[in-house]
Amino acid sequence: MFSKDTYIARRAQLKKTIGSGLLLFLGNDESGMNYADNTYHFRQDSTFLYFFGLPYAGLSAIIDIDNNREIIFGDELTIDAIVWMGTQPTLREKSERVGITEIRASAELEQYLKKAQQQSQTIHYLPPYRAEHQIKLFRWLGIIPGNEKPSVDFIYGVVNQRNYKSEEEIAEIEKACIITADMHLTAMRMVRPGIRECEVAAAVTEVAQANDYQLSFPVIATINGQTLHNHYHGNMIKSGDMLLLDAGAETQMGYAGDMSSTIPADSTFTQRQKDIYDIAVAAHETAVAALKPGIRFEAIYDEACRVIMEGLKGFGFVKGDPVEAVKAGAHALFMPCGLGHMTGLDVHDMENLGEVYVGYNGRPKSTQFGRKSLRLGRELEPGFVLTIEPGIYFIPELIDLWRSQNKFTEFINYEKVSTYKDFSGIRNEEDYLITETGARLLGKKIPLRTEEVEALR
Amino acid sequence: MFSKDTYIARRAQLKKTIGSGLLLFLGNDESGMNYADNTYHFRQDSTFLYFFGLPYAGLSAIIDIDNNREIIFGDELTIDAIVWMGTQPTLREKSERVGITEIRASAELEQYLKKAQQQSQTIHYLPPYRAEHQIKLFRWLGIIPGNEKPSVDFIYGVVNQRNYKSEEEIAEIEKACIITADMHLTAMRMVRPGIRECEVAAAVTEVAQANDYQLSFPVIATINGQTLHNHYHGNMIKSGDMLLLDAGAETQMGYAGDMSSTIPADSTFTQRQKDIYDIAVAAHETAVAALKPGIRFEAIYDEACRVIMEGLKGFGFVKGDPVEAVKAGAHALFMPCGLGHMTGLDVHDMENLGEVYVGYNGRPKSTQFGRKSLRLGRELEPGFVLTIEPGIYFIPELIDLWRSQNKFTEFINYEKVSTYKDFSGIRNEEDYLITETGARLLGKKIPLRTEEVEALR
Repeated sequence: MFSKDTYIARRAQLKKTIGSGLLLFLGNDESGMNYADNTYHFRQDSTFLYFFGLPYAGLSAIIDIDNNREIIFGDELTIDAIVWMGTQPTLREKSERVGITEIRASAELEQYLKKAQQQSQTIHYLPPYRAEHQIKLFRWLGIIPGNEKPSVDFIYGVVNQRNYKSEEEIAEIEKACIITADMHLTAMRMVRPGIRECEVAAAVTEVAQANDYQLSFPVIATINGQTLHNHYHGNMIKSGDMLLLDAGAETQMGYAGDMSSTIPADSTFTQRQKDIYDIAVAAHETAVAALKPGIRFEAIYDEACRVIMEGLKGFGFVKGDPVEAVKAGAHALFMPCGLGHMTGLDVHDMENLGEVYVGYNGRPKSTQFGRKSLRLGRELEPGFVLTIEPGIYFIPELIDLWRSQNKFTEFINYEKVSTYKDFSGIRNEEDYLITETGARLLGKKIPLRTEEVEALR
Repeated sequence: MFSKDTYIARRAQLKKTIGSGLLLFLGNDESGMNYADNTYHFRQDSTFLYFFGLPYAGLSAIIDIDNNREIIFGDELTIDAIVWMGTQPTLREKSERVGITEIRASAELEQYLKKAQQQSQTIHYLPPYRAEHQIKLFRWLGIIPGNEKPSVDFIYGVVNQRNYKSEEEIAEIEKACIITADMHLTAMRMVRPGIRECEVAAAVTEVAQANDYQLSFPVIATINGQTLHNHYHGNMIKSGDMLLLDAGAETQMGYAGDMSSTIPADSTFTQRQKDIYDIAVAAHETAVAALKPGIRFEAIYDEACRVIMEGLKGFGFVKGDPVEAVKAGAHALFMPCGLGHMTGLDVHDMENLGEVYVGYNGRPKSTQFGRKSLRLGRELEPGFVLTIEPGIYFIPELIDLWRSQNKFTEFINYEKVSTYKDFSGIRNEEDYLITETGARLLGKKIPLRTEEVEALR
């Protein structure tokens, strides 16, 4: 964890922003997989990590602004627990490392909250994304699951701190990106006809875990890259395929790396692959070149999509004015997802707090198919960390659907597009920090252009 | 999955056993890690898998015995979901593969249950081990989280089927055990001074995942084997250490392997290690030799513990009569866990249904420290699959605690034991099927005796 001062300063800033009331932080519990004691690996809630730093299950915390108190609620280990899980510092010792001196037993939290309710204190809480959090809110505050009313002030307070990465956070993200790059380099060296997707996924996972890191999200390693979040790993890689790998590492402090690469099964891309791949790279490089403070990310998205449509027009997939096509939403046939997203303690940073707050500063998101999946649209500022990940996908189900609906026939040449239903998809992804003057790649550069990828094979 | 007939027959047997009422099966949902859409790998509920076979999130099922209906509740994919997750068979097609022809939308489940309540049908449900299940029971049946009253009839019905493994289940478990053995062989070949525990854990995980299997439980790979469920992987392995590996694979159908091994960091065990290791092996082989139908597993536990105490007496750790020492519970200083447990679709099979039902046929478990951790005590029967995993642990915290309490001074030589507080722990574990006449090792044999382990190094 960072030094005590970091956490003290973060909490002080939040208290000042919110001004009054009581802030309730729900740490995560262990998550049972197929029974309570067979757990997934523990992942602490990111906001809890940000303000209290402790990566242990079963904790809650309160910042009682009105009474100027900061309390961690949790329980010390029993001897049974020590036998099964090993000796650990006491909760008091752990808490003092993050500048908290008031510790109470978990059982006292309910009473504390009830008293706050009696005294008409405003109790702020964040959107619960785990059912265990919903049950706690029900038990402690009588809130029926599904009827939660999270505090928008609290959300903004957290977002307006976590969106701006400090030097020490950037160093952590960079550590994650370096291992993430190694994961992709490993895959680029091993992909070949005759091995299975699961072998690549396993090798990539091993790179993260051998460094005692976790994955920041489930590995995507698929020859069906047109499926955006494909977690099936059962296919054999054949000559002529491309493997789309989207994978990242998470440091022990919880910071995420997130990169994608598209790797030919053979030592070189086919000409057909290269044609499309090069368009994706052009969109990628256009987007990267545009990164700087003050520009709206949605404008960069528009520009990247225009480059894709223009490139596809050159091969006859698309007709008409590319700018108009993007405005109308026709590009979403090929790029139904966004161009990038904030990243940090969560790979999609603070997604649970609401993308509108994180990525749009409260402005409503578009409802247009494709554009609605753009998680980030706001003006960029120094300290933001985000991904750049344009892609070009040929999704048979979507092509057939739009064609049957005669959708955007002024922009799409379905005759040509339909001959690419077996093409799959392409995505490359890197992580950038917005600086005072532009942007800086985080981690180390991995091969992007076709000739760079081919050189490694 | 197995053939349709398997699932039809399993449900028919359960209906016959329970006789009347309505059985509610809660499938698992996706589990958000640090936000809703960043999920852990999906694991279906094992009882749902056993009776309905479908490994997909968001399903529930009802066997309405009174009205002779079997229904799966779930929703078909939207085009958005297909774009993100790929095309799949329809829910109707999937359900027909397990012999279910009645499919309804998720939203109709609540109404179905409310109607059943109005008609005073008995609604049977199993103990919820995930908070999402508790919220469903609250929403659908008005049960306050924490106040659930699971159906003991339903529990017994499930346990009395799942405890007896069929030929096709044994073949699946055997597949899991073969990959599990490969995981251990990989570790035996790679462990050496200068590599980190996380490297071993990562390599072992890769073996499972490269076969498109999952882990059946989180890997334990530790030089502090005295800590029974140690998930810390940050230590460097040093000369003179032993690495305790407890790890297993889970097949795509959800069946688990579970083995442990204890591997010297150097090419051979030290004499001090060998002395203790050989006692553990003697207990192991005694237990395996005793396996047969009709014998109470708790009697085998007693015998294995006696062998350990007798062996330790030979080196001066223990004094007095070993049988009396075990009866009194003094052996728990060295073996505070059980000798083994049922395994199947869950690595601790059906732990969420209650160990008393699964492992004791309803007879109360001992409350004695050590013996209370024995998950299996009942008479063995053909078709049971269980682990054998005696261990010898020197747990500094426990040694100090008992010594300070003058506990079992008639049996324990604390002077001697205290000199082994740096020893760590030993555990070996194999999986066995109880046959008509004895027992059969599942999977392939991995090195157990010191000379076998050393031969591989």
